[in-house]
Amino acid sequence: MDLTLYIFDLIGTFAFAISGILSTVNKKIDLFGAYIIAFVTALGGGTIRDLLLGKKPLVWIQDTNYIFLVGVAVFMSFFFKERIVKFRKLMFIFDGIGLSVFTIIGVQNTLDIGLSPVVAIMMGTISAVFGGVLRDILCNDIPLILQREIYASACIVGACLYLILNLFISNDLFVICLTTVSIIIIRMLAVTLHLSLPKLK
Amino acid sequence: MDLTLYIFDLIGTFAFAISGILSTVNKKIDLFGAYIIAFVTALGGGTIRDLLLGKKPLVWIQDTNYIFLVGVAVFMSFFFKERIVKFRKLMFIFDGIGLSVFTIIGVQNTLDIGLSPVVAIMMGTISAVFGGVLRDILCNDIPLILQREIYASACIVGACLYLILNLFISNDLFVICLTTVSIIIIRMLAVTLHLSLPKLK
Amino acid sequence: MDLTLYIFDLIGTFAFAISGILSTVNKKIDLFGAYIIAFVTALGGGTIRDLLLGKKPLVWIQDTNYIFLVGVAVFMSFFFKERIVKFRKLMFIFDGIGLSVFTIIGVQNTLDIGLSPVVAIMMGTISAVFGGVLRDILCNDIPLILQREIYASACIVGACLYLILNLFISNDLFVICLTTVSIIIIRMLAVTLHLSLPKLK
Repeated sequence: MDLTLYIFDLIGTFAFAISGILSTVNKKIDLFGAYIIAFVTALGGGTIRDLLLGKKPLVWIQDTNYIFLVGVAVFMSFFFKERIVKFRKLMFIFDGIGLSVFTIIGVQNTLDIGLSPVVAIMMGTISAVFGGVLRDILCNDIPLILQREIYASACIVGACLYLILNLFISNDLFVICLTTVSIIIIRMLAVTLHLSLPKLK
Repeated sequence: MDLTLYIFDLIGTFAFAISGILSTVNKKIDLFGAYIIAFVTALGGGTIRDLLLGKKPLVWIQDTNYIFLVGVAVFMSFFFKERIVKFRKLMFIFDGIGLSVFTIIGVQNTLDIGLSPVVAIMMGTISAVFGGVLRDILCNDIPLILQREIYASACIVGACLYLILNLFISNDLFVICLTTVSIIIIRMLAVTLHLSLPKLK
Repeated sequence: MDLTLYIFDLIGTFAFAISGILSTVNKKIDLFGAYIIAFVTALGGGTIRDLLLGKKPLVWIQDTNYIFLVGVAVFMSFFFKERIVKFRKLMFIFDGIGLSVFTIIGVQNTLDIGLSPVVAIMMGTISAVFGGVLRDILCNDIPLILQREIYASACIVGACLYLILNLFISNDLFVICLTTVSIIIIRMLAVTLHLSLPKLK
């Protein structure tokens, strides 16, 4: 079970790293910069969560696989760049998996240290979307999630769903898969139907 | 006494949340984005302070009232937006109260863990102004406090005043009120007389 | 020995503070803003490193000399601004010393708490370059190190060199000097030969 989550986490980290690198393509950012952006996109959300929760050591300090995985993503992007751009649709699925796994891990870690479900939903969402916020801050853009079609909202819904399903279903893997599929479906609907939250004017 | 400070803290949090939301009005930021900006403006300064001091748990993780209060501010802004813009003058007073309470709480928390007055003044100022810095970073603006008429300086003066008054006056509430009134007066003078610090050229 | 490193650390802090202030010259930033930028440039990298490592108290909270040193740098820049601009070449050496000392302190601190060399190299680089990243984020620029000729790379090479030299040479001061000279030479070569890492396109 923990192994399943670990593998999902690595997939999510890899997908987020690639999406971070893709966002640097038209900027004057060198290979080292690409590594930083990829790292921050992939591991920034979980890092902020753990800093806020006062949890240590950080996951990538304890397990250097994460550090190397981001390196692999950078080198793969560099050598196979044409292909990765073609795989954007597959990336969308990967991104959804990352979003979902990071949400679930954030929620679960927060509950594990005895905090309230409200804080857990918040930490799940932070894990999932604040890597992207840091990426956009570094790239000097207004963070996408402050403006974009339903994205963080999908994590919040997913986090709530995960909490509710856990009350009724004891099979962890089944709950994780159901949550993941829901988040991916919400994202697909949001993108194809151009759904977005109302804005203040 | 602690209750008084708590109520003042909630007022300050609410005022800063509203001011965060108002700053998103002409940007393409949706409701969720508005919540993040409001949260970061209201609770970011204290969060940075506690992270730097290594204090945990963070106040809003322990007491979810803060999380809900920011939500109330977002919904109120959304439904009564015309009115809130009219209340800008009242907001100025609220902002002054927030600035002052956050400064005092920052100073007091730092002294309580046995650190020097210099660090306390710094932490007081960080509590009061770094929420706004984070807001401006997220909105992709140069932080206002780096450029603006006397703002952070009012907190530094207030923090020093609070330390000095505490040496001579034993009534906490009186010291808090005196500090708050001073900060609000400094802010009013700064805005009406267009006072600002010199710049490097 | 520790005293040597402490003095080098103060020199590096001072050099980075000055370089932070110089970067505000053509922006509308007041004296207080200049202090914040200088502080963040000089002490931000080490602060992020210690937050990530969960080490506390932070060095400048424990030893207020750092806080005052940044203040001295701001006042000196304000009163002798013409001269400082003339000393830019000297600043380049100072910056190299800072870069090197911060890298070495970051590497050594990380090894001291029993973490792996990979994490140590990372933390060394973060100590050295993330102050500049924070400065650029505050000034609303794309971080220079994401784009610039060999800069962070010099720290990575320096960190590796430091680790290797430590295996063979037992004289700490000699290792520190050798590492520092190497980083300064790499920086000089990079600037004069316009060396840079490849970019993704």
